[in-house]
Amino acid sequence: MRATLFDLEQTIRQRRNADPGQSYVAKLTARGRGKIAQKVGEEAVETVIAAMASDRQGTISESADLLFHLLLLLADLNISLDDVLDELDRREGVSGIAEKASRKDD
Amino acid sequence: MRATLFDLEQTIRQRRNADPGQSYVAKLTARGRGKIAQKVGEEAVETVIAAMASDRQGTISESADLLFHLLLLLADLNISLDDVLDELDRREGVSGIAEKASRKDD
Amino acid sequence: MRATLFDLEQTIRQRRNADPGQSYVAKLTARGRGKIAQKVGEEAVETVIAAMASDRQGTISESADLLFHLLLLLADLNISLDDVLDELDRREGVSGIAEKASRKDD
Amino acid sequence: MRATLFDLEQTIRQRRNADPGQSYVAKLTARGRGKIAQKVGEEAVETVIAAMASDRQGTISESADLLFHLLLLLADLNISLDDVLDELDRREGVSGIAEKASRKDD
Repeated sequence: MRATLFDLEQTIRQRRNADPGQSYVAKLTARGRGKIAQKVGEEAVETVIAAMASDRQGTISESADLLFHLLLLLADLNISLDDVLDELDRREGVSGIAEKASRKDD
Repeated sequence: MRATLFDLEQTIRQRRNADPGQSYVAKLTARGRGKIAQKVGEEAVETVIAAMASDRQGTISESADLLFHLLLLLADLNISLDDVLDELDRREGVSGIAEKASRKDD
Repeated sequence: MRATLFDLEQTIRQRRNADPGQSYVAKLTARGRGKIAQKVGEEAVETVIAAMASDRQGTISESADLLFHLLLLLADLNISLDDVLDELDRREGVSGIAEKASRKDD
Repeated sequence: MRATLFDLEQTIRQRRNADPGQSYVAKLTARGRGKIAQKVGEEAVETVIAAMASDRQGTISESADLLFHLLLLLADLNISLDDVLDELDRREGVSGIAEKASRKDD
């Protein structure tokens, strides 16, 4: 199992209070939650556009940006990656075979 | 290290070709990439709104939805979670101490 | 000059306090600003996806949805369409020939 | 009735083929539909965030940006503002008193 996202989460938490002149994490954090949330929205839009353009490398790159900024936003609300994974585990347990029933329709 | 996202990725890949009447994954996959991408965009918007409303539980729930649909979109482009984590590892390595220099400004 | 958007703005303002069981405007308004904002984000995502799929009719339909929900969101902040058009007029006046200088880069 | 959006539409159509070094419209158009669509998505996200922050002036400014880039995207698909307003007129005519019935639920 890879530790990438957990390592990244730890790095982000360490850098939040660093010098905004030296750290992108600290700089974006200092600009406030609205700016972090804006980046999450923007990277999601870029992921969508890359996918619709069948741009495989672009989708990988934008998805990485999206995950990075999502972790930054979660940290700003003091939510851990484990909190989100617990939620995913809970759903998979609930749904099991009858996945369909427990998921909302679009 | 938790296997949640990797297990979820495997489950999604298995269900893509299941009966659309039994599986949400199969149903959304059958509706095409545009519908999957739409869900990624929508869940990102919902994550942003929950975060802006300081709704901690809502942010956890919408982030879980976002990760789930992002994995679904990646699978549709035959991109593995490892591909995206490789990209994140590569950046962290590149940036290291001088994180600021290698990241684009917003 | 067509009155469509101004008529729509007036209709929306009249229906905000209607019976939520009879009016979509009243129902969405009653659910709160987060839900209206969510629809603006979702319709923008759908517009983006239709455009990327070169779906002309879909882009027209989703753009109409986007404008409708944007007017609904503006009404919720007591912002008039004229306020937004004033802003657009001001920019066009400012920019004139030297459009480039006064617009932020992406 | 104000001509702002129709004047803006005409200006955008005239500038699409201008010198990308002199015109933001020409520059963004030259970068392709994906970049124009990306701006529509980003400005929608910024509108949502300004509204959620109850930032009235920010919502006016971001809504103006959103309308501007939406017109740019429509022009790129050779869709006129009239095409979108026709769609809105058609719906209002269809719905009339029984608005609720003809609108999809969220």
